Amino acid sequence: VTFHTTILGCGAALPTKRNNPSSQVVNVHDKLFLVDCGEGTQVRMRDLGVKFQKINHVFISHLHGDHYLGIFGYISSMHLLGRKPDLHIYGSADLEQLVRINLRLSHTFLSYELIFHELQFKTPEKIFEDRTVEVVSFPLKHRIECAGFLFREKPLPRNVKKSALKMYDLQPTEIVKLKRGETIRHISGQQLTQDDACEPQRHSRSYAYCSDTAYNEKMVETIAGVNLIYHEATFLEKDKKRAKETFHSTAKQAAMIAQKARAGKLLLGHFSSRYSNPDDFATEASEVFPATEIATEGQTYLVL
Amino acid sequence: VTFHTTILGCGAALPTKRNNPSSQVVNVHDKLFLVDCGEGTQVRMRDLGVKFQKINHVFISHLHGDHYLGIFGYISSMHLLGRKPDLHIYGSADLEQLVRINLRLSHTFLSYELIFHELQFKTPEKIFEDRTVEVVSFPLKHRIECAGFLFREKPLPRNVKKSALKMYDLQPTEIVKLKRGETIRHISGQQLTQDDACEPQRHSRSYAYCSDTAYNEKMVETIAGVNLIYHEATFLEKDKKRAKETFHSTAKQAAMIAQKARAGKLLLGHFSSRYSNPDDFATEASEVFPATEIATEGQTYLVL
Repeated sequence: VTFHTTILGCGAALPTKRNNPSSQVVNVHDKLFLVDCGEGTQVRMRDLGVKFQKINHVFISHLHGDHYLGIFGYISSMHLLGRKPDLHIYGSADLEQLVRINLRLSHTFLSYELIFHELQFKTPEKIFEDRTVEVVSFPLKHRIECAGFLFREKPLPRNVKKSALKMYDLQPTEIVKLKRGETIRHISGQQLTQDDACEPQRHSRSYAYCSDTAYNEKMVETIAGVNLIYHEATFLEKDKKRAKETFHSTAKQAAMIAQKARAGKLLLGHFSSRYSNPDDFATEASEVFPATEIATEGQTYLVL
Repeated sequence: VTFHTTILGCGAALPTKRNNPSSQVVNVHDKLFLVDCGEGTQVRMRDLGVKFQKINHVFISHLHGDHYLGIFGYISSMHLLGRKPDLHIYGSADLEQLVRINLRLSHTFLSYELIFHELQFKTPEKIFEDRTVEVVSFPLKHRIECAGFLFREKPLPRNVKKSALKMYDLQPTEIVKLKRGETIRHISGQQLTQDDACEPQRHSRSYAYCSDTAYNEKMVETIAGVNLIYHEATFLEKDKKRAKETFHSTAKQAAMIAQKARAGKLLLGHFSSRYSNPDDFATEASEVFPATEIATEGQTYLVL
C-alpha cells in the first residue's frame, strides 16, 4: 500500500538554482497531505503532476517565509479552479490571521471553506486521524514556535488466512468479526480466535518531518522506530556555531537524531545556499548513520 | 540611452506552464524599477540575471494575488543578502499593512528600511521623479482599486552644436547657460539664443503599464503619444462578456486603447489560462492596431 513523500522544495530561506523553499507532499494510502508550502509550491505541484485538488490537509511547521509564503497563491488557485471540498490547515494562530487578512484585503471570497486547526507547539499531540493514518505534531527547537509532523499508518486489519477460509467455509459476518479481533463459535462448534484464523499483524509504517530545528533529542521519544525521517541539515559541522546561533542543525546532528530514534532511513534537506555540493551533507551524516540520503527536488521517497 | 522593459510574468491569476503571474522590470537609463510582483518573481529575476538589489522602487498596481504575492519573499531575500539601501514601495495602504503584518508575525527585522508611498487611485498623479525619469500613476478600471504606471523620460538637455562651439569658442559657463535655455551675449557682442547654438530638442520616450483593467478610455489622455504600451488582454473578443464581468479587456479593446493613445507599439499580456495559442491575441489586436506584439516571458522590449 502506498506510503511515500515527494519533495517539492528542500532549500533553506534563500532560493537557489538547485533548491526551492520547503514543501513536500506525503501520500499515505493515496491520501495526499501537504507539508509546508514555500513560495512557488503550486507551480512545482503542477510541474510534477501532483493533483493538488486532492489535498484536503495542509500542515505548516512554522511562520518563516520559506515555509508558508506559497499558501496564499495555492489557496487562490484552487479557488479559481472551482474547488468545493473544505481545506484543513494546521499551523499557528497567526497563520490563520495572515491568510484571512490576505483574503479580505484582496476581496477574495473562496469557493470552498478553510478550516484552521491551531497547533500548540508544546507537547506531542494527535492533530489528525482517519481510518488509515494519524498525524502527530511535536515541538521542534527553533527561533520561533515550530512543529514536526509524524505520519503513522493505523494498524492494518489482519487478513484471514486462505487456509482458514477454506477449512471452515467462513461466512462474511464471521470474517468481519475475526478481523475485528473477536472470537467466533464456528458452526462446527469449534471456537476460533483471531490468532487461529488470521495472518500475523502487519507492520505499521511511519514518516517524520523535522524542519526547522536545532539539535533536539526531545523529539526522539516521539518518533522512535520511525521508518523514514526527513531532518533538516542546514549546515555542515564546520559551521556548527552558526547552526546553533540560528537554531538549525548540522548534517551530523541530523544523523545523531536518526540514530537515537532507530530510524530506518534518514533523508536530509533544508540545505543552506552557502554550500555548493549537497553530497557533503550525505558524507558527513553517513559516518554516524549510514542509511542516509540527500533529498532531491522532484524525487519521491518510499516509506518502507 | 537605455529604456526597456523585461517581462518576468505575463499570465493571469492562474499560473500555467507558459505563463507566470505579473511582474516586469523597467530599465530607464540603467535605473531599475519593479512593476508588480506575482508569486515567484524573485526566482525569475535570479534566473534572468536581474540585479535585484539594484532596484530601489517597486510599484504594485493592485491587491490581487497574482500582482503582489511575490513581494514578501522578494523583501526577505534582499534582507538575507544583506541589503542596506531603502526600498520604496508604491501601492495601496492595505499593501503596507500586509507587508508589515507578515514581517511582524514571522519575527523578521529587516536589514534595510521599507518606505511605503500610498497611491490614491483617483486621478493621475506624479508619484516619483528624479533627474532622468518621472513616474505617473493613473486609475485603471478594475474590480478593486488599481493603477497603471507611466514612465516618462525627463527632457534631455539640448547639446550645443559642434559648429557653434568652434565658431564662438564658447566657455563652460556659456555652455551651461545655453543648455539651460538662456540667451547669452557673446564676447563679440552678438546675442546667442539656445536655438542658435543648440541641437534640436531630443524626443522624450515613455512607457505605460496598464494591467488589470476593463476597457477604459479615460486613461488615453494620460498616456497620449506613449512609445510603448503594455496593456492587459486577458480575453479574446469571443469572451467579451466574460471580460466585462471580470473587469478585464479583450485583445481588440487593448488595441483600441493603443490606437486612441496614438501609441508607438502595443505589447499584450495578462493572458487567461483558458487559451492555448497566444498568437490569437496578436491576430485579433493587430486588425485594429498593427504594431502589436505579444509579451513573452524572459524577453526585453525596447522603448523607442
